[in-house]
Amino acid sequence: MAIAHVIVELKPQVLDPQGEAVKNSLHSLGYEEVKKVRVGKYITLEVEGNDLKEVEEKVKEMADKLLANVVVEKFTVRVEG
Amino acid sequence: MAIAHVIVELKPQVLDPQGEAVKNSLHSLGYEEVKKVRVGKYITLEVEGNDLKEVEEKVKEMADKLLANVVVEKFTVRVEG
Repeated sequence: MAIAHVIVELKPQVLDPQGEAVKNSLHSLGYEEVKKVRVGKYITLEVEGNDLKEVEEKVKEMADKLLANVVVEKFTVRVEG
Repeated sequence: MAIAHVIVELKPQVLDPQGEAVKNSLHSLGYEEVKKVRVGKYITLEVEGNDLKEVEEKVKEMADKLLANVVVEKFTVRVEG
C-alpha cells in the first residue's frame, strides 16, 4: 500500500477570496503581520500498489481528472511507500 | 518576510464524508486501487518577521485560534525564510 500526498493550490494569478477572508479574520485577531493568505487542499490517498513511480503517475492522472481543476489550480504529488 | 505552510487535517478517528465522496468518484473513473481518501486544507501565509522560530510560534497560535478547529482537526506548521 502506498500513501500519496496531493497539494492542490490556486494558480498565483487567480484571486483567492477564501484566503482574503482568512487574512482579514487574522487581522481582526490582531495578527497584522500576516500580509497574504492562500488556501488550498491537502489530499491524502491510500493506493494499492508497490511500484511507487507507477502509483505517482496514476495519482497525477487522478489529480488531472478530478482532484484539481487544472484551469485555475496547480498540484504536486508526493508518494511514500 | 517568512512563508508559513500550515497543513490542517481531520483527526484520524473523525469521519471524512468529503474524502468518501472523492474516493467514490475515483472508483467511478476506474481507479479501484484507491482504498482511502482524506481531504484537508493547505494554507500558505506570508508573514512579516525575520525570526523564523517566533513566526512559527505565532502561526501555531493562529492555527489554534482560527485556521483549525482543534476539536476535530490537527495541524502542522512549517516556516521557511
